[in-house]
Amino acid sequence: MKDAESTIGNLIDKQNVSFISSVDEEGFPNTKAMLTPVKRNGIKEIFWHTNAGSMRIKQFTNNAKACVYFCDKRFFRGIMLVGNMEIVKDKTIMQELWKDDYNIYYKDGVFGGDYTVIKFTATKGRYYSNFKSEDIVIE
Amino acid sequence: MKDAESTIGNLIDKQNVSFISSVDEEGFPNTKAMLTPVKRNGIKEIFWHTNAGSMRIKQFTNNAKACVYFCDKRFFRGIMLVGNMEIVKDKTIMQELWKDDYNIYYKDGVFGGDYTVIKFTATKGRYYSNFKSEDIVIE
Repeated sequence: MKDAESTIGNLIDKQNVSFISSVDEEGFPNTKAMLTPVKRNGIKEIFWHTNAGSMRIKQFTNNAKACVYFCDKRFFRGIMLVGNMEIVKDKTIMQELWKDDYNIYYKDGVFGGDYTVIKFTATKGRYYSNFKSEDIVIE
Repeated sequence: MKDAESTIGNLIDKQNVSFISSVDEEGFPNTKAMLTPVKRNGIKEIFWHTNAGSMRIKQFTNNAKACVYFCDKRFFRGIMLVGNMEIVKDKTIMQELWKDDYNIYYKDGVFGGDYTVIKFTATKGRYYSNFKSEDIVIE
């Protein structure tokens, strides 16, 4: 694929749901729909926010192995990115990604303990289109 | 939840995409969009067809641990089912689920080797609705 970062980045930006997968304590994959990323650096680093007490935070703390999937149903295309998920402790990044209306979700604010930023770093990818798939090199 | 099988079954039937996750050789979750199931028995057993050579078939042969997710974006609801995926060898079931127009995907027909039926058996579930989640007992 030519210019994978642009093609896949556009696919990601046009979706309103992300599918995030972790591995649970018994080794089973666990998938959950989340909102769109709040930031991405190309397709290598992708950020979301979530509640500190969520099951995913617990699972990623135990096992960072992760998969994120974005599905363009209209054109039957999809991108799977595989890599590691970390819980962001850097307060500068937490502040940077905070928006005032997040108080709806996190009543104690940016450093209140519930608002949590997670950062995914991709190591490989696979792109699906027209019933074919191809590996994507992540740079 | 009252009558989980009916509520979740209806959610499944109204979606046109299934998200299927496996665990790869290195222990990472891998997610892929597939079409809707071709059959389900309640929410305990769910069937799809796919190509024999697909990466998922290889992964589920090595490791049956699986997750299937159905997302109702309109009402921000979702159901995650966790369990095991097996490759169906029973020719009666393969024949039962075959439709003539599948020749588009599997040119050698129902027993040509490419058409493959996979069967998921759920052991537990988790239902997401209105930013809350609850465990579902699978019977």
